[in-house]
Amino acid sequence: MVKNSGSKICGMVITPIAIKDPPLLNAAGVHAPYALRTILELVTESGIVGISEIPGNVQTNEALESARSMVLGMDPFHLNALQNRLAAYFGDETAASRGDTPWDQRKLVHVFSALEVACLDIQGKMLDRPVVDLLGGKMRDSVPYAAYLFFKYEGAGGVLGTGQDPAAMGWAAARQKEAVDPEGIVAQAKAMCAEFGFQSIKLKGGAFEPRLETDSMFALYEAFGKDIPLRFDPNAIWKPETGLQFGKELEPILEYLEDPVRGQQNMADLRKKLGIPLATNMCTTSFGDIPSSIRLGSEDIILSDHHFWGGLRSSMELAKMCRTFGRDLSMHSNSHLGISMAAMTHLGAALPEMPYALDTHYPWQSEDVILGGKLPIVDGAVAVPSGPGLGVELDRSMLAKLHADYLACGLTKRDDEAEMQKYHPGWKFETIRW
Amino acid sequence: MVKNSGSKICGMVITPIAIKDPPLLNAAGVHAPYALRTILELVTESGIVGISEIPGNVQTNEALESARSMVLGMDPFHLNALQNRLAAYFGDETAASRGDTPWDQRKLVHVFSALEVACLDIQGKMLDRPVVDLLGGKMRDSVPYAAYLFFKYEGAGGVLGTGQDPAAMGWAAARQKEAVDPEGIVAQAKAMCAEFGFQSIKLKGGAFEPRLETDSMFALYEAFGKDIPLRFDPNAIWKPETGLQFGKELEPILEYLEDPVRGQQNMADLRKKLGIPLATNMCTTSFGDIPSSIRLGSEDIILSDHHFWGGLRSSMELAKMCRTFGRDLSMHSNSHLGISMAAMTHLGAALPEMPYALDTHYPWQSEDVILGGKLPIVDGAVAVPSGPGLGVELDRSMLAKLHADYLACGLTKRDDEAEMQKYHPGWKFETIRW
Repeated sequence: MVKNSGSKICGMVITPIAIKDPPLLNAAGVHAPYALRTILELVTESGIVGISEIPGNVQTNEALESARSMVLGMDPFHLNALQNRLAAYFGDETAASRGDTPWDQRKLVHVFSALEVACLDIQGKMLDRPVVDLLGGKMRDSVPYAAYLFFKYEGAGGVLGTGQDPAAMGWAAARQKEAVDPEGIVAQAKAMCAEFGFQSIKLKGGAFEPRLETDSMFALYEAFGKDIPLRFDPNAIWKPETGLQFGKELEPILEYLEDPVRGQQNMADLRKKLGIPLATNMCTTSFGDIPSSIRLGSEDIILSDHHFWGGLRSSMELAKMCRTFGRDLSMHSNSHLGISMAAMTHLGAALPEMPYALDTHYPWQSEDVILGGKLPIVDGAVAVPSGPGLGVELDRSMLAKLHADYLACGLTKRDDEAEMQKYHPGWKFETIRW
Repeated sequence: MVKNSGSKICGMVITPIAIKDPPLLNAAGVHAPYALRTILELVTESGIVGISEIPGNVQTNEALESARSMVLGMDPFHLNALQNRLAAYFGDETAASRGDTPWDQRKLVHVFSALEVACLDIQGKMLDRPVVDLLGGKMRDSVPYAAYLFFKYEGAGGVLGTGQDPAAMGWAAARQKEAVDPEGIVAQAKAMCAEFGFQSIKLKGGAFEPRLETDSMFALYEAFGKDIPLRFDPNAIWKPETGLQFGKELEPILEYLEDPVRGQQNMADLRKKLGIPLATNMCTTSFGDIPSSIRLGSEDIILSDHHFWGGLRSSMELAKMCRTFGRDLSMHSNSHLGISMAAMTHLGAALPEMPYALDTHYPWQSEDVILGGKLPIVDGAVAVPSGPGLGVELDRSMLAKLHADYLACGLTKRDDEAEMQKYHPGWKFETIRW
């Protein structure tokens, strides 16, 4: 029998960190030399430490800090009450507060995700059980991820700007290289798949004009044949007519097309005209978006993200909703470390159905904050950590180092537009460009 | 730290029982002298016993028995995999397999509900935690229920047919009395509310012609004033024009109207014309019914039942779906004992929102199968058992007695029509009568 005395939360530590991030291109600009993450630790009276990781943003951190009085003294199993209290505190965030960028900027979902995952980590440690068991148990022993390709500038991130390591080999070398054309993308795909064994490939687009990006997809199709499912994501930057033209071109070679156009109505209109599934992490991004998504028919696949949907249990609820309405669920990713990778993998293992390999930026990160270094990706999949809890532990020297990098780099939020202006003065993020 | 060795399930005991049930009237006939329930016990290698209770039916019991090979050896946390295996084994049950009766007759949801609740009971006992903590923790310390009134014949059930106890006092005496007119219903309501302190009242209709039943609602309104919310449920036996006529009459006095007409389309049509919420446990009864419910707008309130919706976690998922689509969730009940009452109360305590008191038949049952006798209803509410698990334990002498009653009574399934034919030879259940 587990001992529940001393299980109340008595400590909460919020540590912003910065991790080296390559200059990856997307519709909103280019990644800065560092991606920001925030590490949360919750400590129980009996000394159990639960951890989680969310996208770093000074406003999110402040919001998390403002929840401290609700968290201290709480029972880590009492998540319904915490969620209700936080919702009342932050108020209803509208869809608009998500922002137009490819990433989400709402407070409540980030804050609750951070707290819920850390509490589930505590629960798992109390039970000597992996987090997946708290989600109904695993459906698979390892979770497949997709190779996530980017158009990019030269460099691997870090304070030196380009962050080049001339001694790097294999993927670590390939990761540094420029990729601004079909040849560069195919080389990147080959190096990434050789290292990690991915069985699906996604290209992030929206950075260049549609012809170059579509040609890159055809080059991938040439290089990998029909056996590797391909996906393409122009981040909703295409006009409807562009979506139709290039969507039709891509129909024969794509597993799915992600966010070709902006907004549920445009997605729904295009979906009626295309013969391939449409996926989204931009037009249906919260439970509040679901009714109009169902009414309009805006996508086939919702790319969930537990950081943006309010945690792992909410993601399971979303999965049930998708199943109920004949949609599929897969997973979105931003730059992240091993704590998020573990959480994503526990969730992926619990999903009753997983028709598509999940997205992850993980190969792009050279650093990690977990003991033992990065979680291995083998044959394109990550083994479900066997626990207890998330099954990963903080490397405190790395945490200190990455926090020092946070303080040194001076970044306080993600701003790919500002970073792009360093390469192209005056560059502006346009929500619909081509 | 909990010890997980020895947590695999190594024993499964299915015990059909019969409990005295009064001759309560409904659209499909009248309750037999005994209501059937099935008690499931799952035993782990280390000796933890998890229990649950579902409606009794020889076919359900056979279905549960057929799942034995999937259950023995399983980890009680691995419910996702069990659910998927059962779904594959039983195949997709259509809406039609639910049947036309007010109660549900599908196998998968009953079998999985029995297994899931027993596994959650085991989990809670392993953790020394109440089941509500496995659902995200409680939002309230006690769960309000409604007085559930019935038109009825004289008697309290049991092998003697009328089951009268001339020495009974209070509600135990009132429970025996006939109630076939407004006066009888008001007397029943007063006795039930005096005993249990209910703050909401529901009348089950569909037994008599609409005028008599509607007059009974107005008599309740006269007797209880505006302070006690009133609900009425003719079990979908009314024609659309009857629903409109009497729905309009009842508009000023009802909190909600339950299943006035049959089928989602009729409900949706009527809902547009009435100014009070419509509730259902008959037209939207499974996740497969949700898309058309949303498209048509067939109800305001879904009356869930964890025995029919596949367990407690599925019910939480349904609650999220209701919240997402602007519906409310409340709870349906059939004749049940304390194990189901405990499960319903843990679920009710976990629901983030609970705008309506839940339904329960519990006051109509004079027997119980849990140690310590029936769970008390105080001020119309049941305190959340503090655990571990469901917080109730089997009374094995009562289990043996109620199983003997099952064997002696000769019933194998609920058949209110056959029972009604003992009172009125040739009586037929008509799905739409008035």
